[in-house]
Amino acid sequence: MTASDRNEQLHLGAFVIAGPGRPGGWRYPQSEDGWLDIDYYRRIAEVLERGRFDLAFFADILAVPNRYGNSHDSQLRYGALGSLRLEPLQVLAAMAGATKHLGLAATKSTSYYEPFDIARGIATLDHLSGGRAAWNIVTSFQDAEARNFSREEHIPREKRYDRADEFLEVTHKLWDSWADDALVSDRSTPLFVDPDKVTPVLHKGEWFNVDGPLNVPRPPQGYPVLIQAGASDRGREFAARWSDLIFVTHYSMESAVAFSKEMKERAARHGRNPKDLKILPGITPLVGETDAIVAEKRRVLGDLIEPVSGLTTLSYHLDVDLSVYPLDEPLPHLKVPGVTGHYDEMREASDKGGLPLAEVGRMYANRYEGDFLGTAEQIADKMQEWFEAGACDGFMVAAHWQPGAFDEFVRLVVPELQRRKLFRTDYSGGTLRDHLGLTRPAVGDWRRLQDEQKDSE
Amino acid sequence: MTASDRNEQLHLGAFVIAGPGRPGGWRYPQSEDGWLDIDYYRRIAEVLERGRFDLAFFADILAVPNRYGNSHDSQLRYGALGSLRLEPLQVLAAMAGATKHLGLAATKSTSYYEPFDIARGIATLDHLSGGRAAWNIVTSFQDAEARNFSREEHIPREKRYDRADEFLEVTHKLWDSWADDALVSDRSTPLFVDPDKVTPVLHKGEWFNVDGPLNVPRPPQGYPVLIQAGASDRGREFAARWSDLIFVTHYSMESAVAFSKEMKERAARHGRNPKDLKILPGITPLVGETDAIVAEKRRVLGDLIEPVSGLTTLSYHLDVDLSVYPLDEPLPHLKVPGVTGHYDEMREASDKGGLPLAEVGRMYANRYEGDFLGTAEQIADKMQEWFEAGACDGFMVAAHWQPGAFDEFVRLVVPELQRRKLFRTDYSGGTLRDHLGLTRPAVGDWRRLQDEQKDSE
Repeated sequence: MTASDRNEQLHLGAFVIAGPGRPGGWRYPQSEDGWLDIDYYRRIAEVLERGRFDLAFFADILAVPNRYGNSHDSQLRYGALGSLRLEPLQVLAAMAGATKHLGLAATKSTSYYEPFDIARGIATLDHLSGGRAAWNIVTSFQDAEARNFSREEHIPREKRYDRADEFLEVTHKLWDSWADDALVSDRSTPLFVDPDKVTPVLHKGEWFNVDGPLNVPRPPQGYPVLIQAGASDRGREFAARWSDLIFVTHYSMESAVAFSKEMKERAARHGRNPKDLKILPGITPLVGETDAIVAEKRRVLGDLIEPVSGLTTLSYHLDVDLSVYPLDEPLPHLKVPGVTGHYDEMREASDKGGLPLAEVGRMYANRYEGDFLGTAEQIADKMQEWFEAGACDGFMVAAHWQPGAFDEFVRLVVPELQRRKLFRTDYSGGTLRDHLGLTRPAVGDWRRLQDEQKDSE
Repeated sequence: MTASDRNEQLHLGAFVIAGPGRPGGWRYPQSEDGWLDIDYYRRIAEVLERGRFDLAFFADILAVPNRYGNSHDSQLRYGALGSLRLEPLQVLAAMAGATKHLGLAATKSTSYYEPFDIARGIATLDHLSGGRAAWNIVTSFQDAEARNFSREEHIPREKRYDRADEFLEVTHKLWDSWADDALVSDRSTPLFVDPDKVTPVLHKGEWFNVDGPLNVPRPPQGYPVLIQAGASDRGREFAARWSDLIFVTHYSMESAVAFSKEMKERAARHGRNPKDLKILPGITPLVGETDAIVAEKRRVLGDLIEPVSGLTTLSYHLDVDLSVYPLDEPLPHLKVPGVTGHYDEMREASDKGGLPLAEVGRMYANRYEGDFLGTAEQIADKMQEWFEAGACDGFMVAAHWQPGAFDEFVRLVVPELQRRKLFRTDYSGGTLRDHLGLTRPAVGDWRRLQDEQKDSE
């Protein structure tokens, strides 16, 4: 089955980092030191919009990780993940002012914020951007984050998702607390907001008590687009229940196909149309004009990567101190309190390649380049192969270095995807839901879906 | 003593509302319905920068007030304070992208946020704007806000300020957790951030436990500009200890002079130079080309104001339900759990004028217009009079309607102030601290000042 048979196209998100990019990437000659500069982000947004991307996506971390050797040293020294991160909603609001179509996704944790604050923050972005906001829901897993938010230790995983479920119920109630036509602004009556169309939510639950209503009208998209990345069983259930879009990482197309199949089935079991759950694996393409240029770029990038810069990030993701294991022996078998998906991915890589820990670190620092490097044609071939195999609905594209690698992707790969009719040549709607082919939910839709799910259980 | 003798100039802030403005203002023919539109705010920012304003300031409320008659009805119907409010940091980030000099102030509550989140959010704005961020510190006083943040009732006033003091200690520790030169970005070594120049804060206190370090470098301004508006004795002590700028409201120049004198003395008792504490009373000027135009505008605006639209806002500010009192009798003598300053102001107005409650509501809805209306010359006279009497260091200028009243002020009043050499004709520096004539604090300055204060006690 080809893509045009399916009459479907890829969706592209950009995994942008509000700080240094990949651990070696900030050392690349074309990398720019603009991490604190508003124009740097506005420029990235403009490039992505020129490339007709569905959305720009910011991950987030609420601490400088110190899991490797119980110290921030390696994280800061190597510019590894989380060494520097601006608050994402503000960066996205600045990008909103520089664009008209690009979707804008912020990561916010259900463990360290309150639902009123998040419902209002994402609704504000949805209004300011004219319906382009998305929220990447994370439950957080790091003690370092807990210790920045006045908690002695982190909420256990099962409890985290219980809290997240209730958090999402409250945010949906708040987004629904204004009818779509509540804001009247009739100057003569006067009737600014029709009080009969604004309803307190009066939520009383295990984790939250929230009276409402929200002090922001219903978002242009009804509910902002919801993104999730949980890989554990409980995380997958949460994603199947709530998400419009899943961001995930895989070592191979085979595991991506299996994951995608399973998630679509889970969504169907929740009474949803599997097409309404979009799955976007992360890739970090390395493109060049010729094979020789690609090979040389790869060599240069590889030389810039220190194994510890990957291991310190992997330690953070797994929530395991890897500094205690010898660099010349294989990745040990571990019970992982952190992100199961990242462990599975490196477990597979380590076992298949028989790699010492140092090489696992190097690979983790520079991940996903394996499958997605080459000329524009070769990268488009690979993307098409994954897409047509049912591995995904599109990709979350990260940059080896910022912002240049996004420019290269837009100049080289996007036109090739467009030539194959795998990707849009222009936006057909104004909101992120439009780009993703998702309908706008009416007031109460979240509850109707939940009720149907309960009935079918 | 004239202004030029003092070789000092006024500071101007704009009190912008991320929602409808004054209760009658949104009904004014020139008002625009752009409250949810990013370009509306970007345009306001451009106008204020053209007028050489020091800063744009957003108040904030974390609930739709329902103090009047225990219902949201009047607040929403009349578009009164808090009926609709976008999240301010995002609005300011969008404005940062449209300007190069204008200071940008966000209100954030120490009662409903965590210090890591606020320290990071304001530091992000300071970086994105190149050193133009300010934080208006509020402790919040409304049960409606508590009930949106999973608390049964509000923290008592004394405790609120204890928490706020510790909150400020933590944010300062976090801003100081990176030395000014910690971000090296040396690609060859590699050394992204020098780990020896980033220090965990390891704060353990009564309200907060925060390990740190922050995941954002030290703000360009060292510490962002701090704003406070507390009028109670404890609030004044807090402001004298922490603030760079005080935003306050007064019914008369006499009370403004007394307040200013007292606050400067308090600052001196805290070991500070009184000049480093800037006091900006709020005004809502009504300017016109001739007396007749002003009189007619005033009549039109007055006709648009419903007494209840002011009383519902005053109920919120005082935290007292005024709906139970007769509209044709005077403002009753009250014990006020809310903002003492607003009560004092209306107490003075009510007693002097012998006003019935309905007129107090009308006046509160349309406040401060009394002294600051007329032609540009008349308004500049009044501003000069206050300034030279020592009532203030400048003004926080609100708009009867948005955005047009800001345009009129910039076109008519600002040139008159500039002609008198009372206001800058261009910015002389890049940061908000530069505009306010405040030095950039070095790492640890907040602690040195606190220690000196303790020594002198």
